[in-house]
Amino acid sequence: MRGLMQNWPMTLDRILVHAASASGSRRIATQRPDGSITASDYASLQKQARAFSAALAGHGIGLGDRVGTLLWNDLPHMTAWYGAMGIGAVVHTLNPRFDAARLAWLINHAGDRLLVIDAQFADTLRQVADRLPTVEHIVIANGGGAALPIGSIAASSLEDFLGAGGPATAAWGGFDEETAAGLCYTSGTTGDPKGVLYSHRSNFLHALCSNQPNGFAIAATDVVLPIVPMFHANAWGWSFIAPMAGAGLVLPGPRLDGASLQRLIEIEDVTFAAAVPTVWQDLLRHVHESGASLGRLARVLVGGAAVPPEMVRAFRDDLGIEVMHGWGMTELSPLGAISSVMPDEATLNGEQIVARKARQGRTLFPVEGRIVGADGKDCPHDDASPGSLQVRGPAVVRRYYGAQEDAVALDGWFDTGDIAVIDGHGFIKLVDRAKDVVKSGGEWISSVELENHAMGCVGVRRAAVIAVPDARWGERPLLIVECDEGETPSDQVIREYLRPLVPRYWLPERIVFAAIPLGPTGKIDKLVLRRLFAQPLPVEAATA
Amino acid sequence: MRGLMQNWPMTLDRILVHAASASGSRRIATQRPDGSITASDYASLQKQARAFSAALAGHGIGLGDRVGTLLWNDLPHMTAWYGAMGIGAVVHTLNPRFDAARLAWLINHAGDRLLVIDAQFADTLRQVADRLPTVEHIVIANGGGAALPIGSIAASSLEDFLGAGGPATAAWGGFDEETAAGLCYTSGTTGDPKGVLYSHRSNFLHALCSNQPNGFAIAATDVVLPIVPMFHANAWGWSFIAPMAGAGLVLPGPRLDGASLQRLIEIEDVTFAAAVPTVWQDLLRHVHESGASLGRLARVLVGGAAVPPEMVRAFRDDLGIEVMHGWGMTELSPLGAISSVMPDEATLNGEQIVARKARQGRTLFPVEGRIVGADGKDCPHDDASPGSLQVRGPAVVRRYYGAQEDAVALDGWFDTGDIAVIDGHGFIKLVDRAKDVVKSGGEWISSVELENHAMGCVGVRRAAVIAVPDARWGERPLLIVECDEGETPSDQVIREYLRPLVPRYWLPERIVFAAIPLGPTGKIDKLVLRRLFAQPLPVEAATA
Ligand SMILES: Nc1ncnc2c1ncn2[C@@H]1O[C@H](COP(=O)(O)O)[C@@H](O)[C@H]1O
Repeated sequence: MRGLMQNWPMTLDRILVHAASASGSRRIATQRPDGSITASDYASLQKQARAFSAALAGHGIGLGDRVGTLLWNDLPHMTAWYGAMGIGAVVHTLNPRFDAARLAWLINHAGDRLLVIDAQFADTLRQVADRLPTVEHIVIANGGGAALPIGSIAASSLEDFLGAGGPATAAWGGFDEETAAGLCYTSGTTGDPKGVLYSHRSNFLHALCSNQPNGFAIAATDVVLPIVPMFHANAWGWSFIAPMAGAGLVLPGPRLDGASLQRLIEIEDVTFAAAVPTVWQDLLRHVHESGASLGRLARVLVGGAAVPPEMVRAFRDDLGIEVMHGWGMTELSPLGAISSVMPDEATLNGEQIVARKARQGRTLFPVEGRIVGADGKDCPHDDASPGSLQVRGPAVVRRYYGAQEDAVALDGWFDTGDIAVIDGHGFIKLVDRAKDVVKSGGEWISSVELENHAMGCVGVRRAAVIAVPDARWGERPLLIVECDEGETPSDQVIREYLRPLVPRYWLPERIVFAAIPLGPTGKIDKLVLRRLFAQPLPVEAATA
Repeated sequence: MRGLMQNWPMTLDRILVHAASASGSRRIATQRPDGSITASDYASLQKQARAFSAALAGHGIGLGDRVGTLLWNDLPHMTAWYGAMGIGAVVHTLNPRFDAARLAWLINHAGDRLLVIDAQFADTLRQVADRLPTVEHIVIANGGGAALPIGSIAASSLEDFLGAGGPATAAWGGFDEETAAGLCYTSGTTGDPKGVLYSHRSNFLHALCSNQPNGFAIAATDVVLPIVPMFHANAWGWSFIAPMAGAGLVLPGPRLDGASLQRLIEIEDVTFAAAVPTVWQDLLRHVHESGASLGRLARVLVGGAAVPPEMVRAFRDDLGIEVMHGWGMTELSPLGAISSVMPDEATLNGEQIVARKARQGRTLFPVEGRIVGADGKDCPHDDASPGSLQVRGPAVVRRYYGAQEDAVALDGWFDTGDIAVIDGHGFIKLVDRAKDVVKSGGEWISSVELENHAMGCVGVRRAAVIAVPDARWGERPLLIVECDEGETPSDQVIREYLRPLVPRYWLPERIVFAAIPLGPTGKIDKLVLRRLFAQPLPVEAATA
């Protein structure tokens, strides 16, 4: 027997429609690259996004078509976001820190028909424009004036695109909630990047679930600053949660240095901000040195990499700000666990609370989590038995875009590639990583790809990349090279060889030369390498 | 193009499974009729509920079968609730204040195969046991000892039922999220009670949405006391929200007087409680007179009837407790709107805040609301133009149980029967009611039914019932009688005639004799009657 309640599909357009009607005049502030601030609100955003939808429809773009975005967190990105999703097109976010070849690979894999880019990246795209057969049009934001074609691809400024119209309006929604809404690629352990194809339903539910009082807990009275980029897993959900809650929204654009963020937080009365540890370290250093105020900032969400206990202390003891530690992944939309406050907290002392907040937290309903040992059984909740962290839930990936097989086991569990222990209260702590990748400043570096490139350099016989702890970036890649007999390419030669092949932030500061141990199956034995080499880099070397 | 995220149906069993694993030892306290308190927790509740499922399965009851409950808010009710819903059976909640004939009508209309009742109602049911052809078994809770058949219907005590077993376990979930989960009848304007058939999806989403930070905002650190009954619209969602959030749960049983509730709140460290205004008035009076403490109580949710401004003041100024005013209906699962805190609140003075909290609040995402004037157009947000309050949403009724037609208009909007105005901030205020019913102490009285019964009394030619404001009950029914020529039955005769026909709380204290005006179509003109008679009852008469 089926219930007899209304059929009301959870499509994401409803979030902005709601915000425009319930909180139409709530402020959206955007920091421009020159530091000036422009103001908008949810009612205007809806108007702009609807105009964007109409313009897309005018270009024949609709349900299921991919629209690539190469933008910072700013109003044009929000406009393209809701404008595309509203008509069932799929927003494919691209990481502006990628090099042209990588961007081309991603655009081609996704089959983007239209790109919306920041004017600052026009030259990068020009390098590969003749290799983007699916792209029919490029919209250039933040450029001003009329836009010239990029290679042979027609282009228009965002203003002209919106002005050109198309059908006077394009209807929003009206499609199934399982319709794809977003596409975000992540660097896998092996092989090519993998795309996670979010649905309207999964993003909608992720917003409702991660904003529970045990989670982000954002209300209409908050002013939210998502520093975490929209190109990385939906800005952790903020582009949906802020309008859903009717919270004020502050978009930082590309300026993410400590001084700029402090000023933005103070001027805009930000109450809640979210970023990776590297960003917070910069901000804390700036505030510490300058004595500047963080205004009404009450809570910060730190995630994407582990939170050092000193960070919890610095925020709490010096600034009276609560740290929330979140664990998530692109494949989880992204939130998986959070260090929510527990009923027993009144019985803990300050250091016990710090210790708890330095853990990755408890899985947040309805995310199901389990930690599976080498024996295939659930690990005891003894905080001492490490195992593979696996998850299930309505906003967890089932299959990567274009893949022929599911990314989950037969019983539906997705293996995160993280190794964790869990305590008696259900708080997990990440202790290792099964996936062979490096996470630097919140972004992935593929060790495999870096190794493959390095092997192309004359004189390199074998190459291995491992992550080494780094005070500023969390982790940095260390490249270990075994040379061909009689050859000794310098580390400088290798680095120059790699430079055009990988994003700037992938370039290893440190390259060591050594014999590379192989395991029983002939694969590089990274466990041995980690034991030998995984020491933190000396601080002076740590500048990417 | 469809997204590629996991297929994870939102079935309600997952809520208790989550609570048992994430907050297994979190306390559930139940107040027994003698005032003593018994303790349980989510892990034990899950065990009991699974045993209940197995016992149901042993009786051949499963997907789609209706299980009636005639219980207060207590552990047996929670056990039957999750035990039935877990295997896709439908929990049909019955109001213990109804008389036997009414209960029989509802049980037959729902086609309940099994009933779970409090021992206290065994005698009531016995009166109609031979008129319940669909009921195969009755489970008697809170009775102790072995149970005797009720009429010819086999019965067992809850303990024996759980012990009897059936298949060792009955699997939970595994069905579609649109599967029916609950059935709750509401007194309609005209004709028979109407059943709202909730789905797993609608209840699950209602829990997620109504517990947003702009809504109930319950976290794991809260201890929740749902005074509002589980038989009335899911106890406003608390039976789902408390375990979902891992909050402590306090179940008050049948003792809802001020002294009992105060004691329970203080002893159990309750932080949040929900009830209709009548209950809060009792409690406030008791606290005022006795000077007793409300312990850690920080927020109260008041709904089901309008909150008097004095109540907001009494809670806030005398006790430092925040009042949240909610508006909802059985048909909305039930929450529709709530007086959430707005960004501008810092600019308001105390009396302005009181005035705002005395309003029914803003519709809570994703509930969509509109107020439609007599001209069929949306009313301006000017706080002065009344219209019909209409809603849409994923937890709003589409069609009543057993009905042949939808309860919503072609465009999907459900007309609530409430007449409201709306201000510039989206706060609604109920100003009238289009539906012809009386709401007394949070429960409905059907004017039409009372009128029909009264007309059966010798000497009554025409009868009309209108609601009159009442300090204690919110509203009470006033019966207006026009007699046959030459006849003058006394009000006492009429009241005695009605006594066996309606629930006790329906009996009108006041009966007036007058000519009843008819409108142009021959229907009773209640507008005129209201103008003439709808004065508050003198306080001494107001004892239902
Ligand atoms: N806060 C409130 N203020 C005034 N009337 C209310 C309020 N909440 C509920 N009601 C009334 O109760 C009806 C729902 O009753 P029920 O379906 O029994 O929960 C609504 O349609 C309103 O008429």
